[in-house]
Amino acid sequence: MDHLAHVSNLRSSQSQTQISHLALDIGGSLIKLVYFCRYDDSCRDDGDELRSQNDSLCSKSDNNQPVLEGRLHFAKFETSKINDCLDFLRSMKLCLGVNSGSHDGTAPPSDKIFIKATGGGAYKFADLFKEKLGVSLDKEDEMECLVTGANFLLKAVHQEAFTYLDGQKEFVQIDPNDLYPYLLVNIGSGVSMIKVDGDGKFERVSGTSLGGGTFWGLGRLLTKCKNFDELLELSHQGNNRIVDMLVGDIYGGTDYAKIGLSSTTIASSFGKAISDSKELEDYQPEDVSRSLLRMISNNIGQISYLNALRFGLKRIFFAGFFIRGHAYTMDTISVAVNFWSKGEAKAMFLRHEGFLGALGAFMSYEKQCLDGLMVHKMQQKFPISASSAGDNIYCSLSSNSDENGSIECTVYGT
Amino acid sequence: MDHLAHVSNLRSSQSQTQISHLALDIGGSLIKLVYFCRYDDSCRDDGDELRSQNDSLCSKSDNNQPVLEGRLHFAKFETSKINDCLDFLRSMKLCLGVNSGSHDGTAPPSDKIFIKATGGGAYKFADLFKEKLGVSLDKEDEMECLVTGANFLLKAVHQEAFTYLDGQKEFVQIDPNDLYPYLLVNIGSGVSMIKVDGDGKFERVSGTSLGGGTFWGLGRLLTKCKNFDELLELSHQGNNRIVDMLVGDIYGGTDYAKIGLSSTTIASSFGKAISDSKELEDYQPEDVSRSLLRMISNNIGQISYLNALRFGLKRIFFAGFFIRGHAYTMDTISVAVNFWSKGEAKAMFLRHEGFLGALGAFMSYEKQCLDGLMVHKMQQKFPISASSAGDNIYCSLSSNSDENGSIECTVYGT
Repeated sequence: MDHLAHVSNLRSSQSQTQISHLALDIGGSLIKLVYFCRYDDSCRDDGDELRSQNDSLCSKSDNNQPVLEGRLHFAKFETSKINDCLDFLRSMKLCLGVNSGSHDGTAPPSDKIFIKATGGGAYKFADLFKEKLGVSLDKEDEMECLVTGANFLLKAVHQEAFTYLDGQKEFVQIDPNDLYPYLLVNIGSGVSMIKVDGDGKFERVSGTSLGGGTFWGLGRLLTKCKNFDELLELSHQGNNRIVDMLVGDIYGGTDYAKIGLSSTTIASSFGKAISDSKELEDYQPEDVSRSLLRMISNNIGQISYLNALRFGLKRIFFAGFFIRGHAYTMDTISVAVNFWSKGEAKAMFLRHEGFLGALGAFMSYEKQCLDGLMVHKMQQKFPISASSAGDNIYCSLSSNSDENGSIECTVYGT
Repeated sequence: MDHLAHVSNLRSSQSQTQISHLALDIGGSLIKLVYFCRYDDSCRDDGDELRSQNDSLCSKSDNNQPVLEGRLHFAKFETSKINDCLDFLRSMKLCLGVNSGSHDGTAPPSDKIFIKATGGGAYKFADLFKEKLGVSLDKEDEMECLVTGANFLLKAVHQEAFTYLDGQKEFVQIDPNDLYPYLLVNIGSGVSMIKVDGDGKFERVSGTSLGGGTFWGLGRLLTKCKNFDELLELSHQGNNRIVDMLVGDIYGGTDYAKIGLSSTTIASSFGKAISDSKELEDYQPEDVSRSLLRMISNNIGQISYLNALRFGLKRIFFAGFFIRGHAYTMDTISVAVNFWSKGEAKAMFLRHEGFLGALGAFMSYEKQCLDGLMVHKMQQKFPISASSAGDNIYCSLSSNSDENGSIECTVYGT
């Protein structure tokens, strides 16, 4: 689906709902959006103007706080196509929460409207948002947002975390009182590894520049694929043994058993490509894609494990838009963690993997009394839908609006 | 220099000397040879026949042991061109030590001649050596040979180890009584990381499949370079910022100071190549090569440091033919170790970096009483020459025969 069609679909699917709160995570490759739509339709429709709203209280909570009921939605755009994102925001009936401005029921001047934003693009594109939409980006720290988003998902959303090994997905019951410490590995363009010790208690302990941007960047150059998902899909049919040098290739088909390396262990990623007899054109894109995916997934798994070991962390949660619920990616990461830890550590994945930062930015509204927003209860109502058929993890508005990965949500606030 | 010319040069440079002992390390990409040539010329010249010799004692040692004086030479061939290596061996006046056979002064039958060999190719190509040269490969464990070779070099060879930072090379004085423990990182096609606790006391604790084979394999596919050294040379002129996504690219030119990432830190290797506007042909090979080299060197440095940390090892020695005394490679590895260890750990390099395994296999002759070989004293006589001008580290027979990186050596034995 091209981006204009995507935007148009987003528009029509939202025609009955209003966006009252919105947060952005603008990364090196992708812009992630989390936004809240109320079930009621009290937000006045006055064209494309961005407005605050404070007249849409639907009910009162047990402790008499005003409550908005609605749904939390997730969407993404490529950062390089930021104008599509701006078009989408402009076209929506945005009734934005503000963190400064009047509270007397009138719309604030647009220069008083703030949107919570995180990721490097919150800095890079601040002027663009001001110029094109007239809104200010209220910058939130990237690592803090990732951690806030992860903690929230792990504590509040049912069946958020799961393991994936040998093709089997198994949900993990998380006890909110026994969550910490853990290692959060966020795989975006690059990779951040964060030791999380509690709410707001964390340290970025490591990272690697071999991430999703490497997979897609190298993959584009090597295969001429037109988009990330196509490249990922290709890898499914590939055979990495065509491209990788295995232990068996060096040892003449036998294992190097003495040090526990089987003949099928990859000795050197892309090591078979040193052969003079084949050029790039002679390799199948699917084999190249598979080797690349395995190289990067395995490397991330290994470095993550070494960092978990360093701090005695038994649980590692992998998130970020690199994964996309892709079976082979998760399997490779799981195998790497299992192999290097000799079964001591386990890789776990998150269903809302790509939206931690945006969710964290969204949650940061509640820190600010001016707005008074507080997410009270969040639960998934519809099955999280897949961007590719048959895979039930990846949530995005780009698919059917009835199965758009949204989360039913109650929000306290004005 | 093509391989036939190389072989011919090797032949002529060796016309006045005889090879009496030889060991091989046959890896996934390269075959490394270490061989000993005596100064005397007593080895009978009877054509291309491989013979043992036991009549060439030049002197007696202090303790009345027979002594051979000569020089230890180093050479390499591409594994894919193993026939060049066989031609070279066939053409040399090989007067080989045997580990079984007659000791009555007569040449043993060729099927009793053994050559010490390590690396996977010692298994893979055993039949080929038997068929083409009539010799058996006496297989030695790869990790054990690497460790034996490293221990020997670090203890016996003057100015073997050095640090490399900010373009400055500094030799490290090694106290043989305070050498252990250390981490040995051997970067061949793949990478092995070995914790060394003493002579013959070691454990392969980790490794990575992103090694020299990855650099050369991916580099070939991306740049169409014809050989590894050309690709390495190219990287010297390249600018990785064209290809890599930097923190500043994501943050709009600013640092992410809060977590210590400067704007020039690589956020995502090859992350800029995700751009739709440029195809592979639009990138300069030198920029691609530089990004690739930095990605792999940095990754090895990071994983090495994490393993050193895990076992409390302060010293990390990097070896293997990937490095080739290349300034930028060593600099990147050093910076990575320095960065991740916050200055606690230091990367060190070895001048005979590529020949640890072959040297270890060579040393293994002395374990076998049948042969009685024992390397007594080894010192470098000539400056180790460079394969590329101006670099004084990389030793190889492929350059001037007067500066061939050989080591003067006294050997006890028959």
